[in-house]
Amino acid sequence: MSKRQGRKARGAQETQRKVDYRNLRNPFPPLNAFTEDRIDAIHAASLDVLGRLGIKVLLPEARSLFETAGARVDGEMVYLPAALVEDSIAMAPKSILLKGGVPERDITLTLGSLIFQPGAGCPHATDLERGRRAGTLNDYLELTKLTHHFDALHMLPPLVEPQDVPMNVRHYAMMRGQLTLSDKVPFVFSRGTPQVQESFEMLKAFRGVTDTEFSQNAYCYTIINTNSPRQLDVPMAQGIIDFARAGQVSIITPFTLMGAMAPVTVAGALTLSHAEAMAAITLGQITNPGAPMTYGTFTSNVDMKSGAPAFGTPEQVKASLGAGQLARKLGLPWRCAAGSAANINDAQAAHETEISGWGAFLAGATVIIHSAGWLEGGLTISYEKLITDMDMVQTFAELCTATDADDDAIALTALAEVEPSGHFFGATHTMERYQTAFYDPVGMDWSNIGTWKERGSEDANTRATAIWKDILRDFVPPKHAPGKIADLDAYIAEKTALGGAPPES
Amino acid sequence: MSKRQGRKARGAQETQRKVDYRNLRNPFPPLNAFTEDRIDAIHAASLDVLGRLGIKVLLPEARSLFETAGARVDGEMVYLPAALVEDSIAMAPKSILLKGGVPERDITLTLGSLIFQPGAGCPHATDLERGRRAGTLNDYLELTKLTHHFDALHMLPPLVEPQDVPMNVRHYAMMRGQLTLSDKVPFVFSRGTPQVQESFEMLKAFRGVTDTEFSQNAYCYTIINTNSPRQLDVPMAQGIIDFARAGQVSIITPFTLMGAMAPVTVAGALTLSHAEAMAAITLGQITNPGAPMTYGTFTSNVDMKSGAPAFGTPEQVKASLGAGQLARKLGLPWRCAAGSAANINDAQAAHETEISGWGAFLAGATVIIHSAGWLEGGLTISYEKLITDMDMVQTFAELCTATDADDDAIALTALAEVEPSGHFFGATHTMERYQTAFYDPVGMDWSNIGTWKERGSEDANTRATAIWKDILRDFVPPKHAPGKIADLDAYIAEKTALGGAPPES
Repeated sequence: MSKRQGRKARGAQETQRKVDYRNLRNPFPPLNAFTEDRIDAIHAASLDVLGRLGIKVLLPEARSLFETAGARVDGEMVYLPAALVEDSIAMAPKSILLKGGVPERDITLTLGSLIFQPGAGCPHATDLERGRRAGTLNDYLELTKLTHHFDALHMLPPLVEPQDVPMNVRHYAMMRGQLTLSDKVPFVFSRGTPQVQESFEMLKAFRGVTDTEFSQNAYCYTIINTNSPRQLDVPMAQGIIDFARAGQVSIITPFTLMGAMAPVTVAGALTLSHAEAMAAITLGQITNPGAPMTYGTFTSNVDMKSGAPAFGTPEQVKASLGAGQLARKLGLPWRCAAGSAANINDAQAAHETEISGWGAFLAGATVIIHSAGWLEGGLTISYEKLITDMDMVQTFAELCTATDADDDAIALTALAEVEPSGHFFGATHTMERYQTAFYDPVGMDWSNIGTWKERGSEDANTRATAIWKDILRDFVPPKHAPGKIADLDAYIAEKTALGGAPPES
Repeated sequence: MSKRQGRKARGAQETQRKVDYRNLRNPFPPLNAFTEDRIDAIHAASLDVLGRLGIKVLLPEARSLFETAGARVDGEMVYLPAALVEDSIAMAPKSILLKGGVPERDITLTLGSLIFQPGAGCPHATDLERGRRAGTLNDYLELTKLTHHFDALHMLPPLVEPQDVPMNVRHYAMMRGQLTLSDKVPFVFSRGTPQVQESFEMLKAFRGVTDTEFSQNAYCYTIINTNSPRQLDVPMAQGIIDFARAGQVSIITPFTLMGAMAPVTVAGALTLSHAEAMAAITLGQITNPGAPMTYGTFTSNVDMKSGAPAFGTPEQVKASLGAGQLARKLGLPWRCAAGSAANINDAQAAHETEISGWGAFLAGATVIIHSAGWLEGGLTISYEKLITDMDMVQTFAELCTATDADDDAIALTALAEVEPSGHFFGATHTMERYQTAFYDPVGMDWSNIGTWKERGSEDANTRATAIWKDILRDFVPPKHAPGKIADLDAYIAEKTALGGAPPES
């Protein structure tokens, strides 16, 4: 009964307040962690790392590309001259249009734009009703629906690993899920050329994109994690090359935990992360000058007592701010991350995602990944946390809107209308605006404790359970042209019969 | 067993990492909500409110002071000329030294300094073991101990109302608690001149402050809430006068919920709040030019579906940013607030305190009140939430520290020492720094899920319970000169025998 009332209230409110969370621009000047001269010093040190210490590149084709471009190659080690790196980065586009299934889902990656993704890459999923389990295709599809539901989540990530689908056909299931359940920009794992090419084919056919259009615009993206420190493995290097050749987007993300895969200092970790990101961007640009790639970092620290990854730390905030300065030095759009190391969606989990989320937001990140649902440092995605974190994501979206301060907003007439110690509930100024004046939250319950107890004393997670179940129950996928799903299924059946495409590793 | 290990780990860590959370300066440029011309327009509208609409002042002495200074008084309404307001504000000090019981507890209120208080003024207290109850003196004393424990909480607030102590003697019990349990700056309720004067007497005697010293420096503070809209009641006006005459600090705080006691728009609510704050500061300055007073605001919105107060909303963040601009226009230190409307310390509660806390931090607030423990829009203070929120407060404190980026921090030697795809756990650079490199959290648990389950699957609130109980168990009050407590008790016994001091209202 109370839940149903809650649902009705939510539905009713949606028709009253018009919001546009789709094309966000961060209105705040980015905050800095370092003076400009120290950013120059970090940049110079990163170039020194690439030129003098080198980076290990496991893919022969990548080494060959580097060598042809002027790098020194010695065994698997590649040493990059500073001029090659800087010239390559200068070729990377400063603004990238990523086309969705419909124009309203197009997004632009550029400094100043603000794009959110929920948690990505989790092996496990959890919710209050079914508990923590290895991720399944059903989880992946449900979480994709939840992602599609919220306009403030702009890209589809690989939320959870569908471990019940064999690796050689998993890319079919994931691309099918993304294309049929959403018109947002889809993700493709860089797990070898065959899977990547087949994913491109499915996307082009389903969304009616010609080869020419596909070569001229970006329609999907991959995430490239370097193997910090200073290594680029086979599938990652291959992914950079494949995506650059296809003109599709690589989001470069060294994952550098201070004290583990990176130096124990913020400046040291950023020096490493910056070097690796520049090396990866260089590979993409020498493969195909002008290929769409973003800069990125995911730098936090470990708990030095246990070695466990920690998120939402002050050091992560500082690293995010510093990374933003380095991104702006290069002029490139960049990704950053929120996230939590907590084991359940409690006050710690909310705290960590908020701290790291604000850090990324204030750093001027273009794409903030893991901004909703990410628990256990990414080992698990929580259905409930995805819901509760949306109030943070949507708050950032609301902060992107201008705050009226014209004479009408200043409201001298209302101030004259209400007597001293009176109230504004019934004032004309209030009545004209009350339905649309304020943010309408996803999961925040502001009822007083008496009402809250009458409704069953539901905590945030219990309410979130009702909310995600409502969304899934009422989910309506975007309309697709007739025959598209059947054609896609026929393609998948044919490829599956041929054995699929084993991943490279 | 696990809790004891946790305690030991906490204790051990404290000896390793030196932090100074006592004298914080906010390193970030404040963020703005409005253009400067709109701030000017709000300021002008506020002056128009005071001059044309007026403010109702219930205390005859205050009306008399206003009239003598040049205001027009008509019945209980006072109309303030703009010049009087602006001249008065120009007399208010831009930097206020508040002296604690020892020099290390002195704080300076000025634009750029950053001072935290936990939740204040709650009628109820709650914790997992004893449940939600009307506040008692025992709760007040325990919560004062918890406040004293954390260096990042710089002032003692009236955390909870000790409802088991009669109003005519409550100020004795509260001042005794503050003085004996802490050497931080104490709070005095403005509940009439007799209670205020007796509180001053207890403070001076206990801390050995002469009348001359007391007249020359500030040693305590009060909070002045206007009765928005546009009213100043008897105890509040009396408090402004009493504190101004004594040279003690008034923190001015219109509490303006958009849509209820204030217009439904951010700009309208700020216009009202700004007008009321300026009127209150004017009263203090005409009473005693140069009296130490801060500007302040506490502006959030109500849920227009229910009329319930809401906190941690985007509108609250915008109001905080705008209020900071107005404070900087006046050049005065100012207070802002964090807080939550949630009924328990769950993900919603953490979200709301973090959103409003970041809003206040980024707005450049001098004093952030309700930054830990405040639930139900201030109806209840939670022991557990006080603990879990401290990781937010201490994160802000950590962000006030500079981030090293000298050559040693950039760590090229460490980057050269570790092979590609190796790790930095054992690197010399790491070993030299690992014990002190990272923030040591109060309540965040970064153990992996296996270890976490072995330790009992404790959520943040369960861990927080163990933490606050540990702090209370191990609490050692500051040392006091011999006889001070006995003298104070004798004073209180004498005054109590005479009937105490009934509050004014």
